[in-house]
Amino acid sequence: MEGIKLAMTQTKEEHFSRDFLASKAIEDFQAFIGRVKKSVPFYQAKLSEIDPESIRTLDDISRLPFTHKADLREAYPFQMLGVDMSRVQEIHATSGTSGSAVVTAYTAHDLKLWGEAMGRVFRRAGVGPDDVVHNAYGYGLFTGGLGMHYAALEVGAAVVPMSGGYTQRQGKMLKDLGATVICSTPSYAQHIAEAMGEMGISRDDLHLKVGIFGAESWSLEMCRELETQLGITALDVYGLAEIIGPGVASECLIGHEGLHVAEDLFYFEVIDPDTGRPVPDGESGELVLSSLKREATPIMRYRTGDITRILPGPCSCGRTRRIDHIKGRVDDMFTLRGINLFPREIESELLRIEELAPVFQLVLDRNSALDILEVHIEPKDHDIVHEHLIHKVKTHLNRTLGINVAVSVQEPHSIPRSEGKAVRLVDRRNLGR
Amino acid sequence: MEGIKLAMTQTKEEHFSRDFLASKAIEDFQAFIGRVKKSVPFYQAKLSEIDPESIRTLDDISRLPFTHKADLREAYPFQMLGVDMSRVQEIHATSGTSGSAVVTAYTAHDLKLWGEAMGRVFRRAGVGPDDVVHNAYGYGLFTGGLGMHYAALEVGAAVVPMSGGYTQRQGKMLKDLGATVICSTPSYAQHIAEAMGEMGISRDDLHLKVGIFGAESWSLEMCRELETQLGITALDVYGLAEIIGPGVASECLIGHEGLHVAEDLFYFEVIDPDTGRPVPDGESGELVLSSLKREATPIMRYRTGDITRILPGPCSCGRTRRIDHIKGRVDDMFTLRGINLFPREIESELLRIEELAPVFQLVLDRNSALDILEVHIEPKDHDIVHEHLIHKVKTHLNRTLGINVAVSVQEPHSIPRSEGKAVRLVDRRNLGR
Repeated sequence: MEGIKLAMTQTKEEHFSRDFLASKAIEDFQAFIGRVKKSVPFYQAKLSEIDPESIRTLDDISRLPFTHKADLREAYPFQMLGVDMSRVQEIHATSGTSGSAVVTAYTAHDLKLWGEAMGRVFRRAGVGPDDVVHNAYGYGLFTGGLGMHYAALEVGAAVVPMSGGYTQRQGKMLKDLGATVICSTPSYAQHIAEAMGEMGISRDDLHLKVGIFGAESWSLEMCRELETQLGITALDVYGLAEIIGPGVASECLIGHEGLHVAEDLFYFEVIDPDTGRPVPDGESGELVLSSLKREATPIMRYRTGDITRILPGPCSCGRTRRIDHIKGRVDDMFTLRGINLFPREIESELLRIEELAPVFQLVLDRNSALDILEVHIEPKDHDIVHEHLIHKVKTHLNRTLGINVAVSVQEPHSIPRSEGKAVRLVDRRNLGR
Repeated sequence: MEGIKLAMTQTKEEHFSRDFLASKAIEDFQAFIGRVKKSVPFYQAKLSEIDPESIRTLDDISRLPFTHKADLREAYPFQMLGVDMSRVQEIHATSGTSGSAVVTAYTAHDLKLWGEAMGRVFRRAGVGPDDVVHNAYGYGLFTGGLGMHYAALEVGAAVVPMSGGYTQRQGKMLKDLGATVICSTPSYAQHIAEAMGEMGISRDDLHLKVGIFGAESWSLEMCRELETQLGITALDVYGLAEIIGPGVASECLIGHEGLHVAEDLFYFEVIDPDTGRPVPDGESGELVLSSLKREATPIMRYRTGDITRILPGPCSCGRTRRIDHIKGRVDDMFTLRGINLFPREIESELLRIEELAPVFQLVLDRNSALDILEVHIEPKDHDIVHEHLIHKVKTHLNRTLGINVAVSVQEPHSIPRSEGKAVRLVDRRNLGR
């Protein structure tokens, strides 16, 4: 009950007016430009011609230069650093096997900022001191694990730092330690639920009430599937290491009415990915984020590559602006004989077919000049006739999305399960070129 | 230079007199007994007959009952909990695939206690705000990763939360992010050093100055080996989840003169494992620890199973009482035809043979009634004649430890490297019984 009360305890920052946020954003951009021109090597060059005083309206902001992922890669490891290393407290990286890792850093102030943003995520989900949080996001350089960890500390919940892996142990601990909250990628939560089924642990053996899932885009159908399997309300959380980690936006307990953005902490815009100009509210485009208040690696107008839209009007919970669930990534979108598609749209349709296990993989290949999509599926049990399933999937996808696909039925449990971000799309079209 | 200065900044707690600590310990035990008899189910039964006021001398303490690992396993999951779950902030477990996991928990107060203990470990090692800490201890339920993480936050250093795994990336990040401190198990540090060698990264490419290694017992020879490979001072840290995690004791920068115990936070004794009575200073025995001030899972007179001794006199750094490096575990000790041995003693001798790679495994088997020890070794390079090596190892171990062993030379890189605690001893004597 305490959880529910907390969910309703919204901070005043979540009700700032548009006008107030706009004037704050202009101040923030002015201060940011003044500061980073002195301290961040990358922005010294990039903003040399720009006078902070010239930023007076939102339209002035929307004409400032973007920061691209390639910029961050080139800045490896520390060309984006805005403070002396003696002030840095934590360093994360988005990948690191090649030279193309993106390094992001935090001062003590930045960790507090992250804690505040993540605290709001947990409060929106009704998580408070009485809760036990099973945290199956990977700890380490990936910001998922420590982000959720700090959130639990922030709201006074108990955190079980499971990290990823040892999936059977995840199931056992979920049951034995009485977790009320589960945090992971949605695909890993599915994998854990599947493992629990094999171990004979059912949702009635658990005390779960809410799941906080993110780090990959997922459909409403997958959400419903997780809610049924685990007996929870499944909420979407969004964020990225370049900005702060998880905590940029999340759903509230009211329902699946979009993600509330911590817009006083992270300025956001939705733009046309081709022209770079803002799109009207309600229209889909690329999300652009600024973490102007971060000290160690602050960033201006970052092209996230994530596709979403601003939802009109406030949420039923009373909180102001929201964005829609991430539809996919700019570079995840593929075109099949003229039709633009995101893996999430296909997931959404596949999960409506009840004979299918909730895992799939898309293989995109090119046969002479034509793109061919092969959908790999698994039947829920051995008895289902493959021909029936193939026909059903082909017909359904043609009817709903207007596409023609090949369908390949795999052995149960043969499609790779993920402990982190799932790989839904395998693109073979560029192989050997 | 700041690091060196900090190392010398010792807290007053590290200079408390024996008498003061004794009177504090008596107070602590009295308060503990009064408290846990009300709140911890396990201790309610165990201490029902004991009146806190009856504890007046150190000898009274040494007659109080022990807590055994089996007690903690039976208490799974929450029978040792001394507070309401709403006050718990973090939960760890020592293992979890069988029902025999040991669960330990932390309130906000306990996390502060842990931070204080770990802060002292880092300060003894000269680690401060100018340092970058590469933390390759595993995060998750194991306390190593988060313990070191909190330590870095406590002293204002920058932590890179590597966690275990992706060993090549560990080497790359060590170099690219300019880490000055490395934290991991000693065997994993060796594995990383080996991987760096293969990648063409040498110690001269690094900025490392100190390593903080623990979670397994290791020899002075292994310490020297790591110091040479990585260009560091290698320091030993000791702790266990049952008490707090890492942070119970550690070496200072002065040299390898033993581990300073945070004895105002964790009361310690060294006992004869057979009689349970204290042994005189300087004599080896089993370490017994009490974490009386921990709120969530406080523990009295815990039989750690670790063999050490109290070193006489203060350290050259001025800090008071110290224990010796852990010689091994009570249950690691094995008897080979009447001679008591610990894997660390054999490690110590093997690392003196310069043709050997610093990895090995001991396989203990029984041939009719006789125990046979087979030592698996790897030559440093392919050119070394196996017969020469076998002869050298057999002769050396016979001369120094008085034992006769079989020697098996393995292909380079074939003995399993560990990312966590190394498995040095494989005991096949009980197989099939």
